[in-house]
Amino acid sequence: MSDKLMIGGREFQSRFILGSGKFSLELIKAVIEHGEAEMVTLALRRANAGGEENILDYIPNNITLLPNTSGARNAEEAVRIARLSRELGCGEFVKVEVMSDSKYLLPDNYETTKATEILAKEGFVVMPYMYPDLYAARSLVDAGAAAVMPLGSPIGSNKGLSTKDFIQILVDEIDLPIIVDAGLGRPSQACEAMEMGVDAIMCNTAVATAGNVALMAKAFKQSIEAGRNAYLAGLGRVLEFEGEASSPLTGFLEG
Amino acid sequence: MSDKLMIGGREFQSRFILGSGKFSLELIKAVIEHGEAEMVTLALRRANAGGEENILDYIPNNITLLPNTSGARNAEEAVRIARLSRELGCGEFVKVEVMSDSKYLLPDNYETTKATEILAKEGFVVMPYMYPDLYAARSLVDAGAAAVMPLGSPIGSNKGLSTKDFIQILVDEIDLPIIVDAGLGRPSQACEAMEMGVDAIMCNTAVATAGNVALMAKAFKQSIEAGRNAYLAGLGRVLEFEGEASSPLTGFLEG
Amino acid sequence: MSDKLMIGGREFQSRFILGSGKFSLELIKAVIEHGEAEMVTLALRRANAGGEENILDYIPNNITLLPNTSGARNAEEAVRIARLSRELGCGEFVKVEVMSDSKYLLPDNYETTKATEILAKEGFVVMPYMYPDLYAARSLVDAGAAAVMPLGSPIGSNKGLSTKDFIQILVDEIDLPIIVDAGLGRPSQACEAMEMGVDAIMCNTAVATAGNVALMAKAFKQSIEAGRNAYLAGLGRVLEFEGEASSPLTGFLEG
Amino acid sequence: MSDKLMIGGREFQSRFILGSGKFSLELIKAVIEHGEAEMVTLALRRANAGGEENILDYIPNNITLLPNTSGARNAEEAVRIARLSRELGCGEFVKVEVMSDSKYLLPDNYETTKATEILAKEGFVVMPYMYPDLYAARSLVDAGAAAVMPLGSPIGSNKGLSTKDFIQILVDEIDLPIIVDAGLGRPSQACEAMEMGVDAIMCNTAVATAGNVALMAKAFKQSIEAGRNAYLAGLGRVLEFEGEASSPLTGFLEG
Repeated sequence: MSDKLMIGGREFQSRFILGSGKFSLELIKAVIEHGEAEMVTLALRRANAGGEENILDYIPNNITLLPNTSGARNAEEAVRIARLSRELGCGEFVKVEVMSDSKYLLPDNYETTKATEILAKEGFVVMPYMYPDLYAARSLVDAGAAAVMPLGSPIGSNKGLSTKDFIQILVDEIDLPIIVDAGLGRPSQACEAMEMGVDAIMCNTAVATAGNVALMAKAFKQSIEAGRNAYLAGLGRVLEFEGEASSPLTGFLEG
Repeated sequence: MSDKLMIGGREFQSRFILGSGKFSLELIKAVIEHGEAEMVTLALRRANAGGEENILDYIPNNITLLPNTSGARNAEEAVRIARLSRELGCGEFVKVEVMSDSKYLLPDNYETTKATEILAKEGFVVMPYMYPDLYAARSLVDAGAAAVMPLGSPIGSNKGLSTKDFIQILVDEIDLPIIVDAGLGRPSQACEAMEMGVDAIMCNTAVATAGNVALMAKAFKQSIEAGRNAYLAGLGRVLEFEGEASSPLTGFLEG
Repeated sequence: MSDKLMIGGREFQSRFILGSGKFSLELIKAVIEHGEAEMVTLALRRANAGGEENILDYIPNNITLLPNTSGARNAEEAVRIARLSRELGCGEFVKVEVMSDSKYLLPDNYETTKATEILAKEGFVVMPYMYPDLYAARSLVDAGAAAVMPLGSPIGSNKGLSTKDFIQILVDEIDLPIIVDAGLGRPSQACEAMEMGVDAIMCNTAVATAGNVALMAKAFKQSIEAGRNAYLAGLGRVLEFEGEASSPLTGFLEG
Repeated sequence: MSDKLMIGGREFQSRFILGSGKFSLELIKAVIEHGEAEMVTLALRRANAGGEENILDYIPNNITLLPNTSGARNAEEAVRIARLSRELGCGEFVKVEVMSDSKYLLPDNYETTKATEILAKEGFVVMPYMYPDLYAARSLVDAGAAAVMPLGSPIGSNKGLSTKDFIQILVDEIDLPIIVDAGLGRPSQACEAMEMGVDAIMCNTAVATAGNVALMAKAFKQSIEAGRNAYLAGLGRVLEFEGEASSPLTGFLEG
């Protein structure tokens, strides 16, 4: 079957985007392999041009890098980080993250949209991290985003789909890939999001804090495929009680 | 890895038990293949010795049959059906179901335990369908059950793990395979049960009512494996807010 | 309006039964007053005939005492405690609790039913604490119970209505007062149970562990009345999106 | 106790704001009385200066009117409606609603903030209906809002607190009254919001669609007071299992 995800003109088999922020460099390769991820985020500060260890040495060549603008507190800072990233050879993809709030690390939709507009015009494939507000998502479409990445619940909370009803609205109304990012703590939650018609999942904390990191990456991969297949298969309905009687025993015993 | 499920001295790779009650016979083979099920339930009335179509002709030889006592309203009827099943060549495994209530189709733990005791003494591998009550589960252990099959939520309701807190108690306290049976409507719910440490899942309605039955069987298989792997990997914890600050942008830009 | 609760031939205005197990004696009176409770449980060990402080001195005369059989591990022990209670002058009402499990403190439905049958024949007004199993509830009806007291979630857990789907079944099928007991940690959970058609609520831990115990008792009282009124008023339905458009602005501005 | 709600310099005993949009005029008075509401919303189109029936004739004098800008699709329209409302004698209070989306009727935070800023400068007491986004709430504070009214779930859905985690953030971070508006379908949901520390509740559909409208208004009033009292009393904690053993029976029986 050719059920592929298209972002920025590139084709992906995998619908699991791996956040690399909390791994030791030694683990990244194994996690990518077990998770069969094809796109991996990258905080620029880990891709220094300097002499030290460089995360890029640990990521296979066929992986699409998704540098993020982690640390940006407004649109201007996000734009600067994105440009630096491209200069450093990290490619055209960028995950725009703007958080002026340092307690809850919630995305600032307004600044995010401004940065998205600027970067899209400069030829970036912009994937903004956002708070799932329908109006903001529409503005991001207008601004030239290549996908939208609504949060499932506050980052690092592992709470799952706190924003479920509003992500469903984005799935139904926004004509871009919807990628749930942040807050998913268990594979079952990733599966649930995919069952709703979400296009892909990004995950970091839940994998990074597992006892066996590589095996958890595999679990997420499997659950994401399961959810996608369930969505494609068409879920049955939740039924009310209807006394769906098995045929009576007597009929059988006497039959 | 040798993570196998043992029931009645038999070893299973698959943790997905397929209920066959609502399929057309033509579909069963495809569903078993896509779901990679190794155990399939069977209502005796579909395994008639007579001249008509026989479900057994559609189930591959390497599959363990799990005849159920569907239709039994008390222990005595369940015992009669189980014996008939063995005489008809359906093997030693039996899923004991006793439901005197015809509206909610809830299992009657008391009658179920009586039937389990009788059948276990006759050499059956008894897997009782039960309401997840800790005391009843202990009685079933004493009665010789080979596994216990607590319901997730009322049969056919697709509501998922309504009984979650009590199934967790069974997982923690009962030293037999715990198989969640009934009520799971989506792969994410099966995954969630497996993440809790449940040993296997039985599913019928959710697969049978899907748009694409074989693909949904595959989705359940994948989600069950995902949940099992997550359990083995060790889930990370749900965290409270802790201001897990990314390193400040300024440090990076000036660095 | 004459919406009264009848138990054992006695009429109650209040649908809030107060568990007294975790209070200092000094607080009980205030809690009863603020909660406007008319029935209060009593562990026999706090109603000693001896010279020390006696809880009965702190409970107003118009309150119906509900001695419980706390500590009983089987039917026989429960029966002994109940009889002692009556001899000590605590009246005809008794809450039968039998828990052989000391970890989760779950009620043992089988032993509870046996004790209920014996005590009902001896003229007690028996209110058994139970695990919400439809079959067990029916057995308790047959055994002569005056009400059934299903647990909402494991005692002391404050988790609310973990057993919601099964309590609804009791409400719909059992022709006795249904009193949710154990596990309710917040007034909103008591309200939710009452909205479902439950007849009364028993609560102890949530009140006893509040910062202001008397005010929390009042909060439970109010929420229970709110839930009862909502049930009587008839809840509106949860609607799907239907574009319930306000009349257009233009019409107004030009009108 | 002097636990009062202050909005725009006015003091309220009641924390229940009644939406009047879906009532027949005959019912409003009874609903206000049973709900003990002190503030009632008003769509301008129902307050015509013309000769027909005027909703203002049905609302007691001591009630604070809260005209809304229902129908506004952008800031400019909201401002026009608010000014008209003041000219018609509906007072200084205004609930700013701006919805350009006509399917889900979600508030447009950006346009809402613009309107809030203009109207606050003109001396209105502005209570904006909003999507619960922390950044938007901060902008509304800066714009001069007198309270913020985040939605609980999509309007008319009766789904309760879909946005719970994000409303909690507003409660913790925003130094204005937080009023949950829209989506609450049952008193228990209003109670739950109040337990979290929300300052008031606005409700319309759930009351208007009840079987007995006045009794449901009373149920909401009671549940809101219950939730407030629980918040003030200090909720106990949800505990893990801890084997909180009752004192052993033997001790009692032998004592």
